[in-house]
Order: sequence, then C-alpha cells, then structure tokens
Amino acid sequence: MSATILDGKKIGEEIRLAVAAEVQGLLSSGYRAPKLVAVLVGENPASEVYVRSKTKTAAALGVDSATLRLPSTISTADLLEEIRQLDADEGVDGILVQLPLPSGIDTDRVLEEVDVAKDVDGFHPVNVGRLALGQPCLTPCTPAGIIEILVRSGVQIAGARACVIGRSRTVGRPVAALLLNRHATVTVCHSKTHEISSVTREADILVAAMGRAGFVKGEMIRAGATVIDVGINEVRDGRELERFYEGEELERKRGVIEQTGRTLVGDVEWRSALCVAGKITPVPGGVGPLTIAMLMRNVVDAYRRRCRV
Amino acid sequence: MSATILDGKKIGEEIRLAVAAEVQGLLSSGYRAPKLVAVLVGENPASEVYVRSKTKTAAALGVDSATLRLPSTISTADLLEEIRQLDADEGVDGILVQLPLPSGIDTDRVLEEVDVAKDVDGFHPVNVGRLALGQPCLTPCTPAGIIEILVRSGVQIAGARACVIGRSRTVGRPVAALLLNRHATVTVCHSKTHEISSVTREADILVAAMGRAGFVKGEMIRAGATVIDVGINEVRDGRELERFYEGEELERKRGVIEQTGRTLVGDVEWRSALCVAGKITPVPGGVGPLTIAMLMRNVVDAYRRRCRV
Repeated sequence: MSATILDGKKIGEEIRLAVAAEVQGLLSSGYRAPKLVAVLVGENPASEVYVRSKTKTAAALGVDSATLRLPSTISTADLLEEIRQLDADEGVDGILVQLPLPSGIDTDRVLEEVDVAKDVDGFHPVNVGRLALGQPCLTPCTPAGIIEILVRSGVQIAGARACVIGRSRTVGRPVAALLLNRHATVTVCHSKTHEISSVTREADILVAAMGRAGFVKGEMIRAGATVIDVGINEVRDGRELERFYEGEELERKRGVIEQTGRTLVGDVEWRSALCVAGKITPVPGGVGPLTIAMLMRNVVDAYRRRCRV
Repeated sequence: MSATILDGKKIGEEIRLAVAAEVQGLLSSGYRAPKLVAVLVGENPASEVYVRSKTKTAAALGVDSATLRLPSTISTADLLEEIRQLDADEGVDGILVQLPLPSGIDTDRVLEEVDVAKDVDGFHPVNVGRLALGQPCLTPCTPAGIIEILVRSGVQIAGARACVIGRSRTVGRPVAALLLNRHATVTVCHSKTHEISSVTREADILVAAMGRAGFVKGEMIRAGATVIDVGINEVRDGRELERFYEGEELERKRGVIEQTGRTLVGDVEWRSALCVAGKITPVPGGVGPLTIAMLMRNVVDAYRRRCRV
C-alpha cells in the first residue's frame, strides 16, 4: 500500500485563482486593488528570495505590492517609525516584516508595532491571542495552509486525534490552535517529549514541524494517518538522499542535485512513511505553495475588513 | 493505595503570605500600596460574592482595592469609557472586570479595552497571545494557580504527558499553554474527543476543567497520575453524593449539605479516583484557594512592572 500524495501545488493554485477572481471582482466594481508592503531589512539572500516570490505572486493575482528596503544598520526605534508610517498609510492593507531581522533589532517589539488589522502574517500578539481564543483573526499563513490542505483533501478534523511535532511560534503553536478550534483532540510534542513514537502513533493527523530532516519514520506513523510535512531541509550530497528516498524518487532527487546543486527534504522520512501513511504531503510541493497563497488570502481579507467591501 | 491529597488551602496561604510580605516591604521602603479595582456590572449574586472575596483578600494582604459598581443597564460604550478612566488612572495597578457581564454587553470588546499592563485576569488578547508565544505576560489566575500547585507539590512537568480536559478561555486553553511552556507534552481533550478514556489514561498530569460533576472516573486515570480538579459543581441533594463519595467523606459532605443546604463537588469522581491517582486536589480546597492568591500575585507584579520597583 502506498499513501495518496497530497498535491500542495494544485491546492495552492486553486486558492490563488480564487483570490485573483476576487480581486478582479473588486476592481470591476470600481474599488482599488488591495496592497501589500513587504519590509526587508538588511541583505539576507534567503529573505530576498522569499520577498521577491511574495511580490511576484501578488502581481500575478492583481494585488499591488511594494518592498520597503531598509539597511541592516537601522535602529529598532527607526524601524518602528517606518512601521508606524505604514500603519498610518490608508492605501496599505497588509504589512509583512520579513524575518529574521538583523540581530540587535527587537523583533517582538517590531511585530507588536504592526497594525493588528494589517498584520497579514498573523504574528501580532493580538492576532495570536484571538487565534488562541478561537476568535476571528488574521491567521499565520503556513498553519492556515495546512488546514486548507486537510479540508480540501477530505480529511476529517473534528474528533480526529492530531499530533503536532514542534512548538514554534510560526507553525507548531498556531496550527495546534487551529486544529483545536476545529475540534480535533490535539497533542503538541517537542524535543522534551519522552517516547515520542508512542505519542505520534496515536495520531490520525500528524504534523511534522520541528525542522529535522527525516525525523519522522514510518514506524512513528499510525497506519492510514494523514501526514503533513512542514520541514524544509536542504541536502547537497546525493548520497545523503538514500536515507530519505529509494527507487525512482531517489533517482529524480539525485537528478535535481546534479542540475541545481541542492534539493529539499522534509521532516518526514519519505521512503518509510509512504508505506504507512494514508495521505502525505511531499517536500517540495506540499505545504510550501500554500504559504504564499494564504498570505494573498490574508491581504485580501485585511483589505475587505479595513475597507468594509 | 490512596492518593496524596494536595492541600490548595495551604499552598494558597503560602502565596498570600509571600505577597503580604512583599507589599509590606514596598510600604516600608516608602512606596504606596498596589491597588486593584474590581468592576462589577449589575447584580449577579455569585459575582457579588466573588468580588467581595477578592477585595477582602486584598485588604488582608495590604493591597488597596475598590469596587466600581455599575448598573446592568449600562451600554457597552459607557462601560468602555469607565474602563478607559481606570486605564488612565496612575494610582490603579490592576483592573478586574467580573464576568459574566450582562447580556447585551460586548464582553470581548470590554476585555480588550483594559490596559494590557493592568490586565490582572490575563484575559486581554495581547496577554493571551504572549502566553501562547511563551513570552512574559500577566497570566490567568486559575491556570497560574494550577502550575503553583504542581511545582510546590514536587510534580515534574517537563517531559511529563499532560492532558487537559476542557478548552475554555479561562482555564483549559491557558493551562495547556502554561504546561507546554514548561515542556510538558500536552493534549487537549473536549466534548468532541473520541474514546476519551484512552486519551486521559496516557496522562501523568490530568487537569479536569470541563465543568461536569464527576465526569473523570478512576478508570480514566493512569495509576499514580497527578489529578487536578478544576470543577466547581453544586450539589443540594445528599443522595446524589453517593456517586462521588463513600465512607467518612460521604458523611462529612452530607453534613455540609445539612448545615448549609449545599456542597461542592469537582469534575472528578473522588471515590474511584482516590484509589488510582498518585496525587489529587480536593473540591473545595484544591485549585479554588489558588485563584485569588494568584490574582493578588498579579496585582503586585503589575504594580512592580508599571512603577518599576
């Protein structure tokens, strides 16, 4: 038996198309386009790539966007002032502060300065709190994407046992809250969990989000469970791949390394998980494509709530 | 074998004494006393009792307090204005809005108006969010009291499997966050959980907080587990008590009903739980006494942070 592979690319595309249609509808009713501003501090190459990818997707969906580039030497106080200007700008609907910020900047303080109504990453404590309380809020994008994958793949959440491995602020904790709000029985595991296999094997829905390549092996998965792999780990050595893949998939991944010098693997050991899980997301092409799609969803939601359209 | 009974009265008293000593220290250093204001809207008899109990404890510890009584007919807008005045009052350190508010008042809106730094109930979304993020915050009193009982009774939290039954905003959700922040592996159960016994039996620490008299029976408890009973359910019929108690305890409880017309029982079936649990909190005299003690702790903490002393 081999698991059904959940196609995040396809689901992400569906959401992007729906958002694009919604923006088109707003424009043809005479409204302005929603606008996202990405705040990019310093010159982290990965952050550059992420921000470019977000503004590119925005453009494709008819969402206006701009990138505010600030030097890595900026003080927390000056960065706060920049955020306040974006907060005050009526034409800006979503503000995204690309993380990580340079060391020396008080990240928590900066995230708290973003207008709660424009906080499209869902990182402001008020949005985090509303999420924890089960109230309407702007929801972090990756966790929201995980819920979309589950719902659109027909996975029953209410009454299911869900296990989240990892308790990060951006993924583990918020996805646990979302699953709980949708009536799953939710367990959060982490580095201090004893006998983790016995915990993960209880789960109908297993979310791997601790950032350790291939940590979740087949024997840690309940037969037929849905496995959501949030890990994004880089592999540059083709020989390392044998831990994760076999057969055709191994050859394909090796080919990717040969062509591009690197490939991505998840927190789940694909090879052994595939024979046990009922449904599983691949890396890449699973949760990843949902994150930007849900960001766009949040920008349009923030716009509609702010402008009441 | 019979469980060790965790004495919440004694632990609450220890905390109250420590708070009183701290206030005394502040006064003798020439600082003013911390001040709590309770906002009491309408004439709910239970709320009257709770508020009186809180202000009485405050007085006993040297904490100033006042009760702002407002009519049940007050509008949300007028109540918000009252809260804003307390927010602006430099001499007020803690604001407590006694719940429930009369129907027709937007409770969420009111709780969000309380100054985050004076929110001694820990109900403001910013404090809820900070708790969910593992950041310093004012923590809801009953959940904070549960942690105190565990810590002061020598119960190991880090690495333990904890199960919380109930996902209320005031107890279930915040205590789950606190246990997770202290490195327990935490599962939240609720009315939609399937085969709940199999889930609760995994727990080293079991927190019963769903408000159903005697719901947790011995067979739902792992042998030797620590059981924290947050339920407060009123019983007026002595015959009903046979479900929960036996022997001397039954006679004692019956006596309470005869004398006062009522007694309290928890969410745990005491009779069957006592032979299985390793440690257990009684009702009353378990978690209850901690709630007001932790409120006082929060008032002094809020005062110290606000006044930087």
